[in-house]
Amino acid sequence: MRKVGFIGLGIMGQPMATHLLESGYEMVVLDRVASRMEPLLSQGAKAAGSPKEVASMSEVVVTMLPNSPDVREVVLGARGAIEGAGTGKTVIDMSTISPEVTREIASELTKKGIKVLDAPVSGGELGAKAATLSIMVGGEKGVFEENLPIFQVLGKKIVHVGPSGFGQTVKLCNQVVCGMGILGVCEGIMLASRAGVDLEKMLEVVGAGAGASWMVSNLGPKIVSRDFEPGFMVKLQQKDLGLALDTARSLSLPLPGTSLVDALFRSAEAHGLQEKGTQALIVALEALAASEGGKRGH
Amino acid sequence: MRKVGFIGLGIMGQPMATHLLESGYEMVVLDRVASRMEPLLSQGAKAAGSPKEVASMSEVVVTMLPNSPDVREVVLGARGAIEGAGTGKTVIDMSTISPEVTREIASELTKKGIKVLDAPVSGGELGAKAATLSIMVGGEKGVFEENLPIFQVLGKKIVHVGPSGFGQTVKLCNQVVCGMGILGVCEGIMLASRAGVDLEKMLEVVGAGAGASWMVSNLGPKIVSRDFEPGFMVKLQQKDLGLALDTARSLSLPLPGTSLVDALFRSAEAHGLQEKGTQALIVALEALAASEGGKRGH
Repeated sequence: MRKVGFIGLGIMGQPMATHLLESGYEMVVLDRVASRMEPLLSQGAKAAGSPKEVASMSEVVVTMLPNSPDVREVVLGARGAIEGAGTGKTVIDMSTISPEVTREIASELTKKGIKVLDAPVSGGELGAKAATLSIMVGGEKGVFEENLPIFQVLGKKIVHVGPSGFGQTVKLCNQVVCGMGILGVCEGIMLASRAGVDLEKMLEVVGAGAGASWMVSNLGPKIVSRDFEPGFMVKLQQKDLGLALDTARSLSLPLPGTSLVDALFRSAEAHGLQEKGTQALIVALEALAASEGGKRGH
Repeated sequence: MRKVGFIGLGIMGQPMATHLLESGYEMVVLDRVASRMEPLLSQGAKAAGSPKEVASMSEVVVTMLPNSPDVREVVLGARGAIEGAGTGKTVIDMSTISPEVTREIASELTKKGIKVLDAPVSGGELGAKAATLSIMVGGEKGVFEENLPIFQVLGKKIVHVGPSGFGQTVKLCNQVVCGMGILGVCEGIMLASRAGVDLEKMLEVVGAGAGASWMVSNLGPKIVSRDFEPGFMVKLQQKDLGLALDTARSLSLPLPGTSLVDALFRSAEAHGLQEKGTQALIVALEALAASEGGKRGH
Protein backbone atom coordinates (compact mmCIF):
# COMPACT_ATOMS: atom_id res chain seq x y z
CA MET A 1 0.00 0.00 0.00
CA ARG A 2 1.23 3.48 -0.78
CA LYS A 3 1.94 5.85 2.08
CA VAL A 4 -0.68 8.61 2.20
CA GLY A 5 -0.29 11.98 3.88
CA PHE A 6 -3.51 13.75 4.81
CA ILE A 7 -3.63 17.47 5.63
CA GLY A 8 -6.85 18.97 7.00
CA LEU A 9 -8.90 16.91 9.44
CA GLY A 10 -12.13 18.91 9.68
CA ILE A 11 -15.71 17.69 9.32
CA MET A 12 -14.88 16.13 5.97
CA GLY A 13 -11.18 15.31 6.33
CA GLN A 14 -11.53 13.44 9.61
CA PRO A 15 -13.79 10.62 8.34
CA MET A 16 -12.01 10.52 4.96
CA ALA A 17 -8.57 10.04 6.57
CA THR A 18 -10.06 7.44 8.90
CA HIS A 19 -11.42 5.42 5.98
CA LEU A 20 -7.99 5.43 4.31
CA LEU A 21 -6.31 4.34 7.52
CA GLU A 22 -8.85 1.57 8.07
CA SER A 23 -8.33 0.41 4.47
CA GLY A 24 -4.71 -0.33 5.29
CA TYR A 25 -2.89 2.74 4.03
CA GLU A 26 0.06 3.91 6.13
CA MET A 27 -1.03 7.41 7.07
CA VAL A 28 0.74 10.62 8.03
CA VAL A 29 -1.63 13.32 9.24
CA LEU A 30 -1.54 17.03 9.95
CA ASP A 31 -4.01 19.62 11.17
CA ARG A 32 -3.47 23.08 12.63
CA VAL A 33 -5.67 21.93 15.51
CA ALA A 34 -3.61 19.22 17.22
CA SER A 35 -6.62 17.63 18.95
CA ARG A 36 -8.13 16.75 15.57
CA MET A 37 -5.14 14.51 14.88
CA GLU A 38 -5.52 12.44 18.05
CA PRO A 39 -8.22 9.96 16.94
CA LEU A 40 -6.11 9.08 13.89
CA LEU A 41 -2.85 8.89 15.84
CA SER A 42 -4.49 6.56 18.35
CA GLN A 43 -5.39 4.26 15.43
CA GLY A 44 -1.82 4.17 14.20
CA ALA A 45 -1.36 7.19 11.93
CA LYS A 46 1.90 9.11 12.27
CA ALA A 47 1.98 12.83 13.04
CA ALA A 48 3.93 15.34 10.98
CA GLY A 49 4.99 18.83 11.98
CA SER A 50 4.57 20.59 8.66
CA PRO A 51 3.18 20.00 5.16
CA LYS A 52 6.80 19.60 4.01
CA GLU A 53 7.25 16.79 6.52
CA VAL A 54 3.97 15.16 5.46
CA ALA A 55 5.17 15.17 1.85
CA SER A 56 8.61 13.82 2.67
CA MET A 57 7.08 10.98 4.72
CA SER A 58 4.49 9.91 2.11
CA GLU A 59 4.02 9.07 -1.56
CA VAL A 60 0.65 10.77 -1.98
CA VAL A 61 -0.41 13.94 -0.17
CA VAL A 62 -4.15 14.62 0.14
CA THR A 63 -5.29 18.10 1.17
CA MET A 64 -8.80 18.86 2.48
CA LEU A 65 -8.80 22.53 3.44
CA PRO A 66 -11.26 25.44 3.57
CA ASN A 67 -10.24 27.66 0.65
CA SER A 68 -7.75 28.70 -2.01
CA PRO A 69 -5.32 30.61 0.29
CA ASP A 70 -5.12 27.63 2.66
CA VAL A 71 -4.25 25.23 -0.14
CA ARG A 72 -1.75 27.67 -1.66
CA GLU A 73 -0.04 28.07 1.70
CA VAL A 74 0.00 24.37 2.54
CA VAL A 75 1.26 23.32 -0.89
CA LEU A 76 3.45 26.20 -2.07
CA GLY A 77 4.22 28.12 1.14
CA ALA A 78 7.30 28.01 3.40
CA ARG A 79 7.56 24.42 4.69
CA GLY A 80 4.87 23.58 2.12
CA ALA A 81 4.27 20.16 0.61
CA ILE A 82 6.18 21.16 -2.51
CA GLU A 83 9.37 21.32 -0.41
CA GLY A 84 9.01 17.74 0.77
CA ALA A 85 7.62 16.17 -2.36
CA GLY A 86 9.75 15.20 -5.31
CA THR A 87 9.55 13.65 -8.74
CA GLY A 88 6.96 10.92 -8.91
CA LYS A 89 5.06 11.89 -5.78
CA THR A 90 1.47 13.05 -6.09
CA VAL A 91 -0.53 15.90 -4.53
CA ILE A 92 -4.32 15.47 -4.56
CA ASP A 93 -6.31 18.50 -3.48
CA MET A 94 -9.80 17.43 -2.42
CA SER A 95 -10.74 20.89 -1.10
CA THR A 96 -13.11 23.10 -3.04
CA ILE A 97 -11.11 26.09 -4.25
CA SER A 98 -10.78 28.41 -7.23
CA PRO A 99 -10.21 26.58 -10.55
CA GLU A 100 -7.72 29.32 -11.44
CA VAL A 101 -5.69 28.88 -8.25
CA THR A 102 -5.84 25.13 -8.83
CA ARG A 103 -4.23 25.60 -12.23
CA GLU A 104 -1.52 27.87 -10.74
CA ILE A 105 -0.68 25.32 -8.06
CA ALA A 106 -0.71 22.47 -10.59
CA SER A 107 1.67 24.40 -12.78
CA GLU A 108 4.17 24.90 -9.93
CA LEU A 109 4.00 21.24 -8.91
CA THR A 110 4.32 20.01 -12.48
CA LYS A 111 7.51 22.06 -12.91
CA LYS A 112 9.08 20.01 -10.11
CA GLY A 113 7.92 16.68 -11.56
CA ILE A 114 5.22 16.28 -8.94
CA LYS A 115 1.95 14.79 -10.16
CA VAL A 116 -1.25 16.61 -9.28
CA LEU A 117 -5.00 16.13 -9.23
CA ASP A 118 -7.86 18.34 -8.12
CA ALA A 119 -10.55 16.07 -6.71
CA PRO A 120 -13.26 17.98 -4.86
CA VAL A 121 -16.16 16.00 -3.45
CA SER A 122 -19.88 16.24 -2.92
CA GLY A 123 -22.06 14.49 -0.38
CA GLY A 124 -21.20 16.41 2.78
CA GLU A 125 -20.42 14.93 6.17
CA LEU A 126 -22.92 12.12 5.57
CA GLY A 127 -21.17 11.12 2.36
CA ALA A 128 -17.72 11.40 3.95
CA LYS A 129 -18.74 9.18 6.86
CA ALA A 130 -20.50 6.63 4.68
CA ALA A 131 -17.71 6.72 2.06
CA THR A 132 -20.33 7.49 -0.58
CA LEU A 133 -18.90 10.79 -1.81
CA SER A 134 -19.08 11.89 -5.41
CA ILE A 135 -15.57 12.79 -6.53
CA MET A 136 -14.95 14.99 -9.57
CA VAL A 137 -11.37 14.76 -10.69
CA GLY A 138 -9.29 17.11 -12.83
CA GLY A 139 -5.75 16.35 -14.07
CA GLU A 140 -3.98 13.86 -16.29
CA LYS A 141 -5.94 10.72 -17.00
CA GLY A 142 -2.98 8.46 -16.11
CA VAL A 143 -2.54 10.12 -12.72
CA PHE A 144 -6.28 9.77 -12.14
CA GLU A 145 -6.06 6.05 -12.83
CA GLU A 146 -3.05 5.57 -10.53
CA ASN A 147 -4.99 7.10 -7.66
CA LEU A 148 -8.37 5.55 -8.32
CA PRO A 149 -7.89 3.02 -5.46
CA ILE A 150 -7.64 5.93 -3.01
CA PHE A 151 -10.79 7.55 -4.37
CA GLN A 152 -12.63 4.22 -4.26
CA VAL A 153 -12.07 4.09 -0.51
CA LEU A 154 -13.75 7.48 -0.11
CA GLY A 155 -16.56 7.62 -2.62
CA LYS A 156 -18.85 5.70 -4.89
CA LYS A 157 -19.19 7.93 -7.97
CA ILE A 158 -15.74 8.90 -9.20
CA VAL A 159 -15.47 10.70 -12.54
CA HIS A 160 -12.44 12.08 -14.36
CA VAL A 161 -13.92 15.28 -15.79
CA GLY A 162 -10.95 16.88 -17.59
CA PRO A 163 -7.55 18.54 -17.10
CA SER A 164 -6.36 20.42 -13.99
CA GLY A 165 -8.98 22.76 -12.59
CA PHE A 166 -11.92 20.96 -14.22
CA GLY A 167 -12.67 19.04 -11.03
CA GLN A 168 -13.09 22.40 -9.32
CA THR A 169 -15.24 23.81 -12.11
CA VAL A 170 -17.56 20.80 -11.92
CA LYS A 171 -17.69 21.19 -8.14
CA LEU A 172 -18.80 24.80 -8.60
CA CYS A 173 -21.55 23.60 -10.97
CA ASN A 174 -22.50 21.17 -8.22
CA GLN A 175 -22.70 23.99 -5.69
CA VAL A 176 -24.88 26.05 -8.02
CA VAL A 177 -27.28 23.09 -8.22
CA CYS A 178 -27.09 22.48 -4.44
CA GLY A 179 -27.57 26.14 -3.54
CA MET A 180 -30.72 26.40 -5.63
CA GLY A 181 -31.82 23.04 -4.24
CA ILE A 182 -31.70 24.07 -0.60
CA LEU A 183 -33.42 27.39 -1.38
CA GLY A 184 -36.22 25.44 -3.06
CA VAL A 185 -36.60 23.17 -0.03
CA CYS A 186 -36.65 26.16 2.32
CA GLU A 187 -39.28 28.05 0.32
CA GLY A 188 -41.42 24.92 -0.09
CA ILE A 189 -41.31 24.34 3.66
CA MET A 190 -42.12 27.98 4.40
CA LEU A 191 -45.16 27.89 2.14
CA ALA A 192 -46.36 24.62 3.66
CA SER A 193 -45.71 25.82 7.20
CA ARG A 194 -47.54 29.11 6.77
CA ALA A 195 -50.48 27.31 5.11
CA GLY A 196 -50.73 24.85 8.00
CA VAL A 197 -49.67 21.74 6.11
CA ASP A 198 -48.01 18.81 7.92
CA LEU A 199 -44.39 19.28 6.91
CA GLU A 200 -43.37 15.65 7.11
CA LYS A 201 -46.21 14.60 4.81
CA MET A 202 -45.29 17.38 2.40
CA LEU A 203 -41.66 16.25 2.28
CA GLU A 204 -42.68 12.60 1.91
CA VAL A 205 -44.74 13.22 -1.19
CA VAL A 206 -42.62 15.98 -2.75
CA GLY A 207 -39.56 13.79 -2.26
CA ALA A 208 -41.12 11.00 -4.33
CA GLY A 209 -41.95 12.88 -7.54
CA ALA A 210 -40.34 15.44 -9.83
CA GLY A 211 -39.27 17.39 -6.73
CA ALA A 212 -37.19 14.48 -5.42
CA SER A 213 -33.66 15.43 -4.43
CA TRP A 214 -30.88 14.75 -1.96
CA MET A 215 -31.73 18.13 -0.43
CA VAL A 216 -35.41 17.29 0.11
CA SER A 217 -34.59 13.87 1.59
CA ASN A 218 -31.59 14.81 3.73
CA LEU A 219 -31.94 18.47 4.71
CA GLY A 220 -35.76 18.73 4.61
CA PRO A 221 -36.21 16.60 7.75
CA LYS A 222 -33.43 18.52 9.52
CA ILE A 223 -35.30 21.78 8.89
CA VAL A 224 -38.54 20.25 10.16
CA SER A 225 -36.82 19.19 13.39
CA ARG A 226 -34.97 22.55 13.57
CA ASP A 227 -31.63 20.75 13.49
CA PHE A 228 -29.17 23.27 12.11
CA GLU A 229 -25.94 21.44 12.95
CA PRO A 230 -23.58 21.27 9.99
CA GLY A 231 -23.14 18.66 7.53
CA PHE A 232 -21.95 21.42 5.27
CA MET A 233 -21.45 24.89 6.78
CA VAL A 234 -23.11 28.08 5.54
CA LYS A 235 -19.71 29.82 5.39
CA LEU A 236 -18.29 27.11 3.12
CA GLN A 237 -21.29 27.12 0.80
CA GLN A 238 -21.00 30.90 0.72
CA LYS A 239 -17.32 30.60 -0.17
CA ASP A 240 -18.16 28.13 -2.95
CA LEU A 241 -20.93 30.34 -4.35
CA GLY A 242 -18.44 33.21 -4.37
CA LEU A 243 -16.04 31.05 -6.40
CA ALA A 244 -18.86 30.07 -8.76
CA LEU A 245 -19.83 33.71 -9.27
CA ASP A 246 -16.17 34.74 -9.74
CA THR A 247 -15.82 32.06 -12.41
CA ALA A 248 -19.10 33.10 -14.04
CA ARG A 249 -17.97 36.73 -14.01
CA SER A 250 -14.70 35.81 -15.71
CA LEU A 251 -16.80 34.07 -18.39
CA SER A 252 -19.24 37.03 -18.76
CA LEU A 253 -22.00 34.69 -17.66
CA PRO A 254 -25.00 35.96 -15.66
CA LEU A 255 -26.36 33.40 -13.18
CA PRO A 256 -29.38 35.13 -11.65
CA GLY A 257 -30.46 32.25 -9.42
CA THR A 258 -26.95 31.74 -8.07
CA SER A 259 -26.65 35.47 -7.36
CA LEU A 260 -29.88 35.38 -5.38
CA VAL A 261 -28.85 32.27 -3.43
CA ASP A 262 -25.50 33.94 -2.68
CA ALA A 263 -27.26 37.06 -1.40
CA LEU A 264 -29.59 35.00 0.81
CA PHE A 265 -26.69 33.00 2.26
CA ARG A 266 -25.01 36.34 2.97
CA SER A 267 -28.14 37.24 4.92
CA ALA A 268 -27.79 33.94 6.79
CA GLU A 269 -24.23 34.98 7.66
CA ALA A 270 -25.52 38.35 8.83
CA HIS A 271 -27.76 36.40 11.19
CA GLY A 272 -24.70 34.72 12.71
CA LEU A 273 -25.32 31.35 11.05
CA GLN A 274 -21.85 30.94 9.45
CA GLU A 275 -21.07 27.72 11.21
CA LYS A 276 -24.51 26.17 10.93
CA GLY A 277 -25.48 23.77 8.16
CA THR A 278 -26.78 25.17 4.88
CA GLN A 279 -30.32 24.20 5.94
CA ALA A 280 -30.10 27.18 8.34
CA LEU A 281 -30.80 29.30 5.26
CA ILE A 282 -34.44 29.02 6.32
CA VAL A 283 -33.74 31.14 9.41
CA ALA A 284 -32.72 34.06 7.19
CA LEU A 285 -35.79 33.56 5.02
CA GLU A 286 -38.03 33.45 8.08
CA ALA A 287 -36.53 36.72 9.29
CA LEU A 288 -37.31 38.20 5.88
CA ALA A 289 -40.85 36.88 6.15
CA ALA A 290 -41.33 38.32 9.63
CA SER A 291 -40.10 41.76 8.64
CA GLU A 292 -42.18 41.86 5.46
CA GLY A 293 -45.22 40.00 6.64
CA GLY A 294 -45.31 40.76 10.33
CA LYS A 295 -45.97 37.09 11.05
CA ARG A 296 -43.71 34.20 11.93
CA GLY A 297 -43.96 30.86 10.19
CA HIS A 298 -43.12 29.05 13.40
CA MET B 1 -65.11 -2.38 -10.30
CA ARG B 2 -66.55 1.11 -9.94
CA LYS B 3 -67.34 3.07 -13.09
CA VAL B 4 -64.89 5.91 -13.56
CA GLY B 5 -65.43 9.01 -15.66
CA PHE B 6 -62.32 10.82 -16.81
CA ILE B 7 -62.40 14.40 -18.09
CA GLY B 8 -59.26 15.88 -19.66
CA LEU B 9 -57.09 13.64 -21.83
CA GLY B 10 -53.97 15.77 -22.34
CA ILE B 11 -50.33 14.79 -21.85
CA MET B 12 -51.10 13.61 -18.33
CA GLY B 13 -54.75 12.57 -18.55
CA GLN B 14 -54.30 10.32 -21.58
CA PRO B 15 -51.89 7.81 -19.97
CA MET B 16 -53.68 8.03 -16.60
CA ALA B 17 -57.08 7.18 -18.11
CA THR B 18 -55.45 4.40 -20.11
CA HIS B 19 -53.98 2.82 -16.96
CA LEU B 20 -57.42 2.86 -15.29
CA LEU B 21 -59.04 1.29 -18.35
CA GLU B 22 -56.36 -1.39 -18.54
CA SER B 23 -56.82 -2.12 -14.84
CA GLY B 24 -60.39 -3.14 -15.52
CA TYR B 25 -62.38 -0.01 -14.64
CA GLU B 26 -65.36 0.71 -16.86
CA MET B 27 -64.45 4.11 -18.23
CA VAL B 28 -66.39 7.07 -19.58
CA VAL B 29 -64.17 9.74 -21.14
CA LEU B 30 -64.46 13.31 -22.32
CA ASP B 31 -62.12 15.85 -23.85
CA ARG B 32 -62.83 19.08 -25.73
CA VAL B 33 -60.58 17.69 -28.48
CA ALA B 34 -62.49 14.68 -29.81
CA SER B 35 -59.40 13.06 -31.35
CA ARG B 36 -57.85 12.67 -27.89
CA MET B 37 -60.73 10.38 -26.91
CA GLU B 38 -60.23 7.96 -29.79
CA PRO B 39 -57.40 5.79 -28.40
CA LEU B 40 -59.47 5.17 -25.26
CA LEU B 41 -62.71 4.57 -27.16
CA SER B 42 -60.94 2.03 -29.35
CA GLN B 43 -59.93 0.18 -26.16
CA GLY B 44 -63.51 0.05 -24.92
CA ALA B 45 -64.12 3.30 -23.05
CA LYS B 46 -67.47 5.01 -23.58
CA ALA B 47 -67.75 8.59 -24.82
CA ALA B 48 -69.83 11.24 -23.07
CA GLY B 49 -71.07 14.52 -24.50
CA SER B 50 -70.75 16.69 -21.41
CA PRO B 51 -69.33 16.62 -17.89
CA LYS B 52 -72.92 16.16 -16.66
CA GLU B 53 -73.23 13.06 -18.82
CA VAL B 54 -69.86 11.75 -17.57
CA ALA B 55 -71.07 12.16 -14.00
CA SER B 56 -74.44 10.53 -14.60
CA MET B 57 -72.74 7.54 -16.29
CA SER B 58 -70.09 6.94 -13.58
CA GLU B 59 -69.60 6.60 -9.84
CA VAL B 60 -66.33 8.50 -9.66
CA VAL B 61 -65.45 11.46 -11.86
CA VAL B 62 -61.74 12.30 -12.28
CA THR B 63 -60.78 15.67 -13.76
CA MET B 64 -57.32 16.44 -15.17
CA LEU B 65 -57.51 19.97 -16.57
CA PRO B 66 -55.21 22.95 -17.08
CA ASN B 67 -56.33 25.48 -14.46
CA SER B 68 -58.90 26.70 -11.93
CA PRO B 69 -61.41 28.17 -14.42
CA ASP B 70 -61.46 24.91 -16.40
CA VAL B 71 -62.19 22.84 -13.32
CA ARG B 72 -64.81 25.30 -12.10
CA GLU B 73 -66.57 25.22 -15.48
CA VAL B 74 -66.40 21.43 -15.86
CA VAL B 75 -67.59 20.76 -12.32
CA LEU B 76 -69.93 23.64 -11.48
CA GLY B 77 -70.81 25.12 -14.91
CA ALA B 78 -73.86 24.57 -17.11
CA ARG B 79 -73.94 20.84 -17.95
CA GLY B 80 -71.22 20.46 -15.31
CA ALA B 81 -70.43 17.29 -13.39
CA ILE B 82 -72.40 18.57 -10.40
CA GLU B 83 -75.58 18.30 -12.48
CA GLY B 84 -75.05 14.63 -13.21
CA ALA B 85 -73.56 13.54 -9.91
CA GLY B 86 -75.64 12.85 -6.85
CA THR B 87 -75.36 11.76 -3.25
CA GLY B 88 -72.65 9.20 -2.75
CA LYS B 89 -70.79 9.87 -5.99
CA THR B 90 -67.27 11.22 -5.86
CA VAL B 91 -65.43 13.95 -7.79
CA ILE B 92 -61.63 13.73 -7.73
CA ASP B 93 -59.79 16.69 -9.21
CA MET B 94 -56.25 15.68 -10.14
CA SER B 95 -55.50 19.00 -11.88
CA THR B 96 -53.25 21.56 -10.25
CA ILE B 97 -55.40 24.58 -9.41
CA SER B 98 -55.85 27.21 -6.72
CA PRO B 99 -56.33 25.80 -3.20
CA GLU B 100 -58.95 28.49 -2.65
CA VAL B 101 -60.97 27.55 -5.75
CA THR B 102 -60.62 23.91 -4.70
CA ARG B 103 -62.27 24.72 -1.37
CA GLU B 104 -65.06 26.65 -3.11
CA ILE B 105 -65.77 23.73 -5.46
CA ALA B 106 -65.57 21.23 -2.58
CA SER B 107 -68.07 23.30 -0.63
CA GLU B 108 -70.59 23.30 -3.52
CA LEU B 109 -70.23 19.56 -4.07
CA THR B 110 -70.50 18.75 -0.37
CA LYS B 111 -73.77 20.70 -0.17
CA LYS B 112 -75.23 18.23 -2.69
CA GLY B 113 -73.91 15.18 -0.83
CA ILE B 114 -71.17 14.58 -3.41
CA LYS B 115 -67.83 13.44 -2.04
CA VAL B 116 -64.75 15.29 -3.17
CA LEU B 117 -60.97 15.00 -3.18
CA ASP B 118 -58.22 17.20 -4.59
CA ALA B 119 -55.42 14.91 -5.72
CA PRO B 120 -52.82 16.72 -7.81
CA VAL B 121 -49.83 14.73 -8.98
CA SER B 122 -46.11 15.10 -9.55
CA GLY B 123 -43.85 13.16 -11.86
CA GLY B 124 -44.81 14.61 -15.23
CA GLU B 125 -45.51 12.69 -18.41
CA LEU B 126 -42.84 10.12 -17.48
CA GLY B 127 -44.56 9.43 -14.16
CA ALA B 128 -48.02 9.33 -15.75
CA LYS B 129 -46.89 6.82 -18.38
CA ALA B 130 -44.98 4.66 -15.89
CA ALA B 131 -47.78 4.92 -13.27
CA THR B 132 -45.19 6.16 -10.78
CA LEU B 133 -46.81 9.50 -9.96
CA SER B 134 -46.69 11.06 -6.54
CA ILE B 135 -50.24 11.91 -5.51
CA MET B 136 -50.98 14.45 -2.77
CA VAL B 137 -54.55 14.16 -1.61
CA GLY B 138 -56.75 16.64 0.24
CA GLY B 139 -60.22 15.86 1.58
CA GLU B 140 -61.87 13.57 4.11
CA LYS B 141 -59.76 10.64 5.20
CA GLY B 142 -62.60 8.15 4.63
CA VAL B 143 -63.13 9.36 1.06
CA PHE B 144 -59.36 9.12 0.51
CA GLU B 145 -59.39 5.51 1.65
CA GLU B 146 -62.37 4.60 -0.56
CA ASN B 147 -60.50 5.86 -3.60
CA LEU B 148 -57.06 4.58 -2.78
CA PRO B 149 -57.39 1.70 -5.30
CA ILE B 150 -57.80 4.25 -8.09
CA PHE B 151 -54.74 6.19 -6.96
CA GLN B 152 -52.74 2.98 -6.67
CA VAL B 153 -53.28 2.35 -10.37
CA LEU B 154 -51.77 5.73 -11.20
CA GLY B 155 -48.98 6.33 -8.74
CA LYS B 156 -46.59 4.84 -6.27
CA LYS B 157 -46.37 7.46 -3.50
CA ILE B 158 -49.86 8.39 -2.37
CA VAL B 159 -50.23 10.57 0.72
CA HIS B 160 -53.33 12.02 2.38
CA VAL B 161 -52.04 15.44 3.38
CA GLY B 162 -55.08 17.08 4.98
CA PRO B 163 -58.56 18.50 4.31
CA SER B 164 -59.85 19.91 0.99
CA GLY B 165 -57.35 22.19 -0.71
CA PHE B 166 -54.32 20.77 1.11
CA GLY B 167 -53.47 18.50 -1.81
CA GLN B 168 -53.24 21.64 -3.93
CA THR B 169 -51.17 23.50 -1.34
CA VAL B 170 -48.69 20.63 -1.18
CA LYS B 171 -48.57 20.54 -4.98
CA LEU B 172 -47.66 24.23 -4.98
CA CYS B 173 -44.86 23.49 -2.49
CA ASN B 174 -43.77 20.78 -4.93
CA GLN B 175 -43.73 23.28 -7.79
CA VAL B 176 -41.66 25.73 -5.74
CA VAL B 177 -39.11 22.95 -5.18
CA CYS B 178 -39.25 21.87 -8.85
CA GLY B 179 -38.96 25.41 -10.22
CA MET B 180 -35.85 26.10 -8.18
CA GLY B 181 -34.56 22.67 -9.15
CA ILE B 182 -34.72 23.23 -12.88
CA LEU B 183 -33.19 26.70 -12.53
CA GLY B 184 -30.29 25.13 -10.64
CA VAL B 185 -29.78 22.53 -13.35
CA CYS B 186 -29.88 25.21 -16.07
CA GLU B 187 -27.36 27.46 -14.32
CA GLY B 188 -25.05 24.54 -13.53
CA ILE B 189 -25.12 23.48 -17.18
CA MET B 190 -24.49 27.05 -18.37
CA LEU B 191 -21.46 27.40 -16.11
CA ALA B 192 -20.08 24.04 -17.22
CA SER B 193 -20.77 24.75 -20.88
CA ARG B 194 -19.13 28.17 -20.86
CA ALA B 195 -16.11 26.75 -19.00
CA GLY B 196 -15.71 23.97 -21.58
CA VAL B 197 -16.62 21.06 -19.30
CA ASP B 198 -18.10 17.85 -20.73
CA LEU B 199 -21.76 18.25 -19.77
CA GLU B 200 -22.57 14.57 -19.52
CA LYS B 201 -19.68 13.96 -17.12
CA MET B 202 -20.76 16.96 -15.07
CA LEU B 203 -24.33 15.66 -14.81
CA GLU B 204 -23.12 12.15 -14.00
CA VAL B 205 -21.10 13.26 -10.98
CA VAL B 206 -23.38 16.07 -9.79
CA GLY B 207 -26.32 13.67 -9.99
CA ALA B 208 -24.63 11.25 -7.58
CA GLY B 209 -23.90 13.57 -4.64
CA ALA B 210 -25.66 16.29 -2.68
CA GLY B 211 -26.83 17.77 -6.01
CA ALA B 212 -28.74 14.62 -6.94
CA SER B 213 -32.31 15.24 -8.04
CA TRP B 214 -35.04 14.12 -10.38
CA MET B 215 -34.38 17.33 -12.32
CA VAL B 216 -30.65 16.63 -12.77
CA SER B 217 -31.27 13.01 -13.81
CA ASN B 218 -34.31 13.51 -16.03
CA LEU B 219 -34.15 17.04 -17.46
CA GLY B 220 -30.36 17.53 -17.41
CA PRO B 221 -29.78 15.05 -20.25
CA LYS B 222 -32.66 16.59 -22.25
CA ILE B 223 -30.97 19.99 -22.03
CA VAL B 224 -27.64 18.49 -23.12
CA SER B 225 -29.29 16.95 -26.17
CA ARG B 226 -31.32 20.16 -26.77
CA ASP B 227 -34.57 18.19 -26.46
CA PHE B 228 -37.15 20.73 -25.38
CA GLU B 229 -40.28 18.65 -25.98
CA PRO B 230 -42.64 18.72 -23.01
CA GLY B 231 -42.98 16.37 -20.24
CA PHE B 232 -44.31 19.35 -18.34
CA MET B 233 -44.99 22.57 -20.27
CA VAL B 234 -43.50 25.97 -19.43
CA LYS B 235 -46.99 27.53 -19.48
CA LEU B 236 -48.27 25.05 -16.88
CA GLN B 237 -45.27 25.51 -14.59
CA GLN B 238 -45.77 29.25 -14.99
CA LYS B 239 -49.44 28.88 -14.06
CA ASP B 240 -48.47 26.81 -10.99
CA LEU B 241 -45.82 29.32 -9.89
CA GLY B 242 -48.46 32.03 -10.22
CA LEU B 243 -50.75 30.02 -7.93
CA ALA B 244 -47.88 29.49 -5.46
CA LEU B 245 -47.10 33.21 -5.41
CA ASP B 246 -50.83 34.10 -5.06
CA THR B 247 -51.03 31.75 -2.08
CA ALA B 248 -47.82 33.16 -0.61
CA ARG B 249 -49.15 36.69 -1.07
CA SER B 250 -52.36 35.82 0.75
CA LEU B 251 -50.17 34.55 3.62
CA SER B 252 -47.89 37.66 3.59
CA LEU B 253 -45.01 35.33 2.79
CA PRO B 254 -42.10 36.51 0.62
CA LEU B 255 -40.59 33.73 -1.53
CA PRO B 256 -37.66 35.43 -3.27
CA GLY B 257 -36.42 32.35 -5.13
CA THR B 258 -39.89 31.49 -6.40
CA SER B 259 -40.40 35.08 -7.56
CA LEU B 260 -37.16 34.92 -9.54
CA VAL B 261 -38.01 31.54 -11.07
CA ASP B 262 -41.45 32.92 -12.01
CA ALA B 263 -39.85 35.95 -13.68
CA LEU B 264 -37.41 33.77 -15.62
CA PHE B 265 -40.20 31.45 -16.80
CA ARG B 266 -42.05 34.57 -17.92
CA SER B 267 -38.96 35.39 -19.97
CA ALA B 268 -39.14 31.87 -21.43
CA GLU B 269 -42.74 32.60 -22.40
CA ALA B 270 -41.62 35.89 -23.97
CA HIS B 271 -39.27 33.77 -26.08
CA GLY B 272 -42.23 31.76 -27.38
CA LEU B 273 -41.45 28.65 -25.33
CA GLN B 274 -44.90 28.27 -23.67
CA GLU B 275 -45.51 24.80 -25.02
CA LYS B 276 -41.98 23.50 -24.57
CA GLY B 277 -40.88 21.52 -21.52
CA THR B 278 -39.68 23.37 -18.44
CA GLN B 279 -36.09 22.48 -19.39
CA ALA B 280 -36.46 25.12 -22.15
CA LEU B 281 -35.88 27.65 -19.36
CA ILE B 282 -32.24 27.43 -20.38
CA VAL B 283 -33.04 29.11 -23.70
CA ALA B 284 -34.22 32.22 -21.85
CA LEU B 285 -31.13 32.16 -19.64
CA GLU B 286 -28.87 31.78 -22.68
CA ALA B 287 -30.54 34.80 -24.28
CA LEU B 288 -29.86 36.74 -21.08
CA ALA B 289 -26.25 35.57 -21.18
CA ALA B 290 -25.82 36.60 -24.80
CA SER B 291 -27.27 40.05 -24.24
CA GLU B 292 -25.18 40.63 -21.12
CA GLY B 293 -22.02 38.81 -22.08
CA GLY B 294 -21.97 39.13 -25.85
CA LYS B 295 -21.14 35.42 -26.10
CA ARG B 296 -23.28 32.34 -26.61
CA GLY B 297 -22.89 29.25 -24.49
CA HIS B 298 -23.61 27.00 -27.45
